[in-house]
Amino acid sequence: MAGDDHEFRSACSIARTLDILGDKWTILVVRDLAWHGKHTFLELQSSAEDIPANLLSNRLRRLMAWGLVTRQPYQDRPVRYRYQLTDQGRDLEPVLKSIMAWGHKHLEGGHFDTEAEPSQQGA
Amino acid sequence: MAGDDHEFRSACSIARTLDILGDKWTILVVRDLAWHGKHTFLELQSSAEDIPANLLSNRLRRLMAWGLVTRQPYQDRPVRYRYQLTDQGRDLEPVLKSIMAWGHKHLEGGHFDTEAEPSQQGA
Repeated sequence: MAGDDHEFRSACSIARTLDILGDKWTILVVRDLAWHGKHTFLELQSSAEDIPANLLSNRLRRLMAWGLVTRQPYQDRPVRYRYQLTDQGRDLEPVLKSIMAWGHKHLEGGHFDTEAEPSQQGA
Repeated sequence: MAGDDHEFRSACSIARTLDILGDKWTILVVRDLAWHGKHTFLELQSSAEDIPANLLSNRLRRLMAWGLVTRQPYQDRPVRYRYQLTDQGRDLEPVLKSIMAWGHKHLEGGHFDTEAEPSQQGA
C-alpha cells in the first residue's frame, strides 16, 4: 500500500491523496506515463507543458517513493531508465478521466480518448 | 464558461483543469464547500487540515476569479461573506469522488459518504 511508512496529517482520503498528487506536474507525469506512451526521462520532458527537468526529476522520485512508479535501466554508460506506472499508479486513471471531463466541459480543453489508444500499457 | 478570458498554455483538458486546481488547498476548499457545509471564512479555516488564512484567502479569490465560487455578504460592520460553489464548481464532485476513492483504496484514508449527507447543498 502506498504511504505505509508515512504519517498522514489528515484522515480524509482526499487530503491524503493530495499529499501525493497535490501538484500539477505530478498528475501530468502520471498522464504521460498512463496514456501518452512516454517512459524515458527525455520523452517525459518533451510533454506539451514543458516541465522543467529539475521538477520532472523531483516528481519522478516522489512517485517512486510512493510506489506509484518504478524504473528499470535499459542502457548503461550513461545509465538510462525506463519509467512505468505500478498497478497503484495505473489506478489513478479514473482521477485523470474525471479531471479531463471537467476541463473538457468547462475549459474547452482537448479530450484524449483512452479507448482509441492501441495499447494503454504503453510501448 | 470558466477561463473564458484566460490564455491556456496547453490544449489538454487535464493540464487546463490543473491550472486551476493544481494545488492541494484549492481542492480541499472545494471539498469543504461541497460536502462539509462550510461556507464562511472562519468555517473554511477550521478544516481538519488547518489551511493558513492567507492561503485560504488567496484560493477563494482564485476560485471566484475562475467562476467556481461566488460570495454574498451576510453581515455588515464588519462585512462577512458566505461562499458557495457555482454550478461549475459543484461539477467538480466527480473529481473529488475519484480522488477520494483512490485514497480510500491505497492510503487507508477515511471515506466521506456523500449520499448519507442530509443536504448536499449545504446549510
